Amino acid sequence: MPSPTSLPKGAAVFAQSGGPTTVINASMAGAVLEAKKFPKVFTKLLGAKNGILGVLNEELFDFKAEAPADLKNLKLCPAAAAGSCRYKVKTEADYARIVEVFAAHNIRYFFYAGGNDSMDTADKVSKLAKSQGYEMIVMGIPKTIDNDLGFTDHCPGFGSVAKYNATQVMEAGRDTEALYTADTTTVQEVMGRNAGWIAASTGLAHRSEADAPHLIYVPEIPVSAEKLAGDVRGVLKRLGYCFVVVCEGVKNEKGEYLAEIGGSFGADAFGHKQLGGAGEFVANLIEKEVGVKARRNKPGTLQRNGTHWASKTDVSEAFMCGQRAVRHALLGDTGHMVTLVRTSNKPYKCDTGLAKLSDVANGEHFLPRDFLDENGTMITRKFRDYLEPLVKGEVKVPMGKDGLPQYVRLKRKLLAKKCGAWKK
Amino acid sequence: MPSPTSLPKGAAVFAQSGGPTTVINASMAGAVLEAKKFPKVFTKLLGAKNGILGVLNEELFDFKAEAPADLKNLKLCPAAAAGSCRYKVKTEADYARIVEVFAAHNIRYFFYAGGNDSMDTADKVSKLAKSQGYEMIVMGIPKTIDNDLGFTDHCPGFGSVAKYNATQVMEAGRDTEALYTADTTTVQEVMGRNAGWIAASTGLAHRSEADAPHLIYVPEIPVSAEKLAGDVRGVLKRLGYCFVVVCEGVKNEKGEYLAEIGGSFGADAFGHKQLGGAGEFVANLIEKEVGVKARRNKPGTLQRNGTHWASKTDVSEAFMCGQRAVRHALLGDTGHMVTLVRTSNKPYKCDTGLAKLSDVANGEHFLPRDFLDENGTMITRKFRDYLEPLVKGEVKVPMGKDGLPQYVRLKRKLLAKKCGAWKK
Repeated sequence: MPSPTSLPKGAAVFAQSGGPTTVINASMAGAVLEAKKFPKVFTKLLGAKNGILGVLNEELFDFKAEAPADLKNLKLCPAAAAGSCRYKVKTEADYARIVEVFAAHNIRYFFYAGGNDSMDTADKVSKLAKSQGYEMIVMGIPKTIDNDLGFTDHCPGFGSVAKYNATQVMEAGRDTEALYTADTTTVQEVMGRNAGWIAASTGLAHRSEADAPHLIYVPEIPVSAEKLAGDVRGVLKRLGYCFVVVCEGVKNEKGEYLAEIGGSFGADAFGHKQLGGAGEFVANLIEKEVGVKARRNKPGTLQRNGTHWASKTDVSEAFMCGQRAVRHALLGDTGHMVTLVRTSNKPYKCDTGLAKLSDVANGEHFLPRDFLDENGTMITRKFRDYLEPLVKGEVKVPMGKDGLPQYVRLKRKLLAKKCGAWKK
Repeated sequence: MPSPTSLPKGAAVFAQSGGPTTVINASMAGAVLEAKKFPKVFTKLLGAKNGILGVLNEELFDFKAEAPADLKNLKLCPAAAAGSCRYKVKTEADYARIVEVFAAHNIRYFFYAGGNDSMDTADKVSKLAKSQGYEMIVMGIPKTIDNDLGFTDHCPGFGSVAKYNATQVMEAGRDTEALYTADTTTVQEVMGRNAGWIAASTGLAHRSEADAPHLIYVPEIPVSAEKLAGDVRGVLKRLGYCFVVVCEGVKNEKGEYLAEIGGSFGADAFGHKQLGGAGEFVANLIEKEVGVKARRNKPGTLQRNGTHWASKTDVSEAFMCGQRAVRHALLGDTGHMVTLVRTSNKPYKCDTGLAKLSDVANGEHFLPRDFLDENGTMITRKFRDYLEPLVKGEVKVPMGKDGLPQYVRLKRKLLAKKCGAWKK
């Protein structure tokens, strides 16, 4: 580790971006607790309220004003405790504003947890600061349930959403199996706009032919109405019941999102426009074309906040990513995102590496074709080998006296402002 | 306990009915394991495959042919391991068929886990057998996530669905809170066609004003579009975000189900018929009338099979209900359902009692008005006191090497048939 004198001395700001995950707070806990050990470098530990919006609005809070126990308990806390946003920084004025706020508070370290877009933002902030001669270190922390970031073996957040959905599909699959004489099929819609990692991960529950899910549809493999109905009929013929998992971003053979179309593959068959997403579309298709009842499950935001059933491996790795981002900053590294590097699979071992923010910003990592079988609807042994270590281990969340979890809520008392209002 | 000679000697059949719950298998485990202790009375321990359909179709299996470890592990297993159905026994021919199959296999004990309809079926079977001079004992075991059975303090299954939904609303509520600048509101639809117990139970997560849920809608209190939109606007004004829980059976002021109407409260405002259930209806209303984004969560059958997050209290009580049904049968009791009797609340103590099947068949237990506040959208201290003991305690489900639960699946090898085919 270099001597603190060779590093810029100033405040560090931690921000969270985009859709929450089960473990994004574990990453923040890892980073903040690690940074706390180096008060000579990090003169202040600040949080940005609601991601980059907190920087733009100059809404910053001091982590040292939070109770130490709360910082520790952040490791097991759903959603984004600092607040998040979906704001896309695009204009030069916005980037200039970010650097202005950083300079006003002598913020020299920016730790940003997010996906591709956030890494792009972090990269541009880093470059603008450099061009203005404002010395600072910018480090990205990977975060996305979608598992679609490049340059990393997997993303913190994915293991937990996989464990959550696979477990629940296993459990609800038993319901379909028990009640098949009435509720013959069930369709579960899971998240994933462009990549099918989450949908595919539910395949882990399919240990035997009887086990749900029986069919999985992912965005990487377009599917026609005819194929889908035929697949379901085939399962019904074998088992008498069928549990289908469909990713929200599945498309038909024309490249149209099932969730959006009401044309060729929808209105003709059912006489009305589809409204309720890909799962609703598939359930309607099964009811009308196959002629059996289809139940609908759509966990929605529940799947990315299921802290009570988080993967212990995922929580630990997310925490480690936060720690390592700080460690790398202390080594003078900047302009990089921490990556997860699988150094061994049996036994599973995972270390961290670095990727350039600009590289991560432009990459999107799709499900490899050989992670699914020939029909494209079930996972292979290869994907199981990849996935199993990521979902292993359970956590013990803090419980209240009322029988429910007791999660931390940060106070987020805002610092006095030093800049004028943000001109949007 | 009477001497075995005063009791009919013969086979016992155990059957599960209607929608599965997280703990209906715990009740079956309790009953079967208890009955196993009395081989001089219960000459065989049979399961009916798919509830009463298994009796009608003469599809019976022998619990003694199952692995002893599997019977023990049934206590923590989602859905209905013997199989369930939604078949309503109505005709005299069907009732006569049931008694015919019982007599053919010398079945003298019928243990039926279910709700009102199942207790009605059990009652009629009991009476028909008696009128035919066929000596048998019929005992009901309460089962419903809906908690709408009368004569019992609460129903096995309710505590677990309450713990599941309340925890998940708490967790997803943090998502809405973190991302309110984009995803300002979230609507979660939960089960409950006529009674709002499940929806109301999520109120347990609302420990402070910031905590989800902020508004709860139940079937017992009809709500107009105007009131609902006004309620949401009020929460948004105070907090900036809003999490709504709506029961699938909520009605408008005209008594129409929100899930079904496309008229006065739907098509006028939005120009199309509502299709996706009560949650979809409320989410559309918020987007169109209040003008903010609404996310949709619909756990569907996930909520009644969440064994990984079952209430330990609920599992124990469900097991006890099964045991006690057998114990009462051994005392010669018949024509009754086991009930749960809360003998003390602080500390919580629960014993069992009995109610006549015919009484239970005709009762429906709605949410008392004083369990909700004046506005009808949040629970009161009185309901908290009732609910908290029921959701307490966590379970430890058996885990596989792949990081997912390892649940039992019964072999259900069918006995040779002795009767002709069922004439439907």
